Amino acid sequence: MTDRNAGPDADFDRTVRDLIDNKTKPPGALGQVEAVALQLAHATGSAAPRLGSCELTIFAADHGIAAEGVSAYPQAVTREMVLNFLGRGAAANVFAEAVGAAVRVVDAGVAGDPIDHPDLVQRRIGPGTRNCLDGPAMTGAQRDDALQAGRQLAESSPADVLCFGEMGIGNTSAATLLAHKLLGLPVVDLVGRGTGLDDAGLAHKTAVLEAAAARTAPGLDAVRALAEYGGFEIAMMAGAMLGAAQSKRPVLVDGFISTAAALVALRIAPAAGRCLIYAHRSAEHGHRTMLDALDARPILDLGMRLGEGTGALLAWPIVRAASAMLTDMASFESAGVSGPV
Amino acid sequence: MTDRNAGPDADFDRTVRDLIDNKTKPPGALGQVEAVALQLAHATGSAAPRLGSCELTIFAADHGIAAEGVSAYPQAVTREMVLNFLGRGAAANVFAEAVGAAVRVVDAGVAGDPIDHPDLVQRRIGPGTRNCLDGPAMTGAQRDDALQAGRQLAESSPADVLCFGEMGIGNTSAATLLAHKLLGLPVVDLVGRGTGLDDAGLAHKTAVLEAAAARTAPGLDAVRALAEYGGFEIAMMAGAMLGAAQSKRPVLVDGFISTAAALVALRIAPAAGRCLIYAHRSAEHGHRTMLDALDARPILDLGMRLGEGTGALLAWPIVRAASAMLTDMASFESAGVSGPV
Repeated sequence: MTDRNAGPDADFDRTVRDLIDNKTKPPGALGQVEAVALQLAHATGSAAPRLGSCELTIFAADHGIAAEGVSAYPQAVTREMVLNFLGRGAAANVFAEAVGAAVRVVDAGVAGDPIDHPDLVQRRIGPGTRNCLDGPAMTGAQRDDALQAGRQLAESSPADVLCFGEMGIGNTSAATLLAHKLLGLPVVDLVGRGTGLDDAGLAHKTAVLEAAAARTAPGLDAVRALAEYGGFEIAMMAGAMLGAAQSKRPVLVDGFISTAAALVALRIAPAAGRCLIYAHRSAEHGHRTMLDALDARPILDLGMRLGEGTGALLAWPIVRAASAMLTDMASFESAGVSGPV
Repeated sequence: MTDRNAGPDADFDRTVRDLIDNKTKPPGALGQVEAVALQLAHATGSAAPRLGSCELTIFAADHGIAAEGVSAYPQAVTREMVLNFLGRGAAANVFAEAVGAAVRVVDAGVAGDPIDHPDLVQRRIGPGTRNCLDGPAMTGAQRDDALQAGRQLAESSPADVLCFGEMGIGNTSAATLLAHKLLGLPVVDLVGRGTGLDDAGLAHKTAVLEAAAARTAPGLDAVRALAEYGGFEIAMMAGAMLGAAQSKRPVLVDGFISTAAALVALRIAPAAGRCLIYAHRSAEHGHRTMLDALDARPILDLGMRLGEGTGALLAWPIVRAASAMLTDMASFESAGVSGPV
């Protein structure tokens, strides 16, 4: 982590804080929007970052562990939802339209045959991961390919701000196992109902994940944990976060799955943290635990638990407003407004 | 209040809930966005309300009680900020631009001479209210004129969704006294630092407001309390909320001052409640108390306390997304997506 108490970074921090305090409003009166603005400045390296465009990339992939009955929905839903994204009928599509963000959909490894659609970005690592209850979900080569594909996809985006979303039946299981291995917290503190398991389903999922976790030693490093328990979409999201940070672009981190990808990215490159803005707190049990472990204060808390990047999208206009505060809002001096008595 | 347990309203409620549950997402997975969508349907009377446009109207006025030193800023700031709004330099302007909302600025009664500007909407009731420590802030005729002007301004707006904001040095004092009289809660539970009083300033403000409150009996009715303690901008906002409800248009209620106006509007016409969507929880002490008294769960909680409609504006894209969920999102059937196993 960069020490912001001294050196050029501290000077820059002071400059931006002064700029914000001189805007025509009482100091601190825009609350968390001011904190977001400060982070945008640090992420981009500019005290006046003009952030006008946003793109959501949805990574879709399947998970071998879905065969254990850890989800309320059948695996076929991953593919069906990819088609729904391409048909612009999903929540992510209508939210993106409502907030003025572009959408692209990536096949990172959906089960079955490749999906033939002109708008689908093909980056298939394989037809879903293997079942991580029995062995590693993916090979080291697959993991590296997925990370690299994610980096490239982020770097090729024309947008100023990037949102990453995901679709993959079983992926709360993968995210739970990753968080468990990376944070060292018990599975029961991280596992949740996903798309809507009942109590019996949750107990079964917990038992399956505890058995899968027991297969490897505690305290795996992030890249090893990613191969053992990750998903192709999660690995690709982690790579995309690294690519965004490399190009100094803010990332709006969505919910439970996305935050697991962020955990991986942060272990690989801690400096990426200055680009990661936590968009919302998911209702999925365990997301609060992950956010607390990251000391992250998300922008929204709407009880959402859908994924797809929907939470990230709803935070985009607020991030855009924070950026506009820096670039376009008048100062007391420029507007001729009196200060305190 | 309308009884939603029986009759056509209950049938409509069931219809909209079923529509939301059949969208391609697990039931309830969009959390509060689903609750907002349901309210939008009830507000508009349509199960598929297409809400594409939003306008912020900022009402500005001065307050006689400012002479008591209850604000951290001089009264001149009201007028200076009106010019800042007209010059598009205020937070409300840049936020409106960021979220795609129009802005109009209304002089409801700024102290001094009328402001000559082609974009300013002139609805001056007077050059600020009188000091409510000594007597009624306004006459009954002034109050009625302000309410009527607000109604007309709401009805003349072309927008689908309306935001109302305010500017007026001293108006947290007026809002505190209104809430005190209407809710029957102690002044100390409602009074706050406004634009940024220190501890001594807050103690002084509290003493002034308690003295002003003691001037009249507890339990004033809303229209009487409005004349005794309100402001021209608050009365006009209350009228605008009534006008919006009359034309079945959702209103995004901003912070502390706006919620005081909502309290007045709700006492005049309780059915207006179905159109009032609480946009955010302000950091101004007492807003939480007011929201709790209304049993309102605001959309955002960003620690903001600026007013001007800034909180309402940031909620607009989320409201727009909720509306788009109703109008544009696919159902499981239409998208060919499988349900739970």
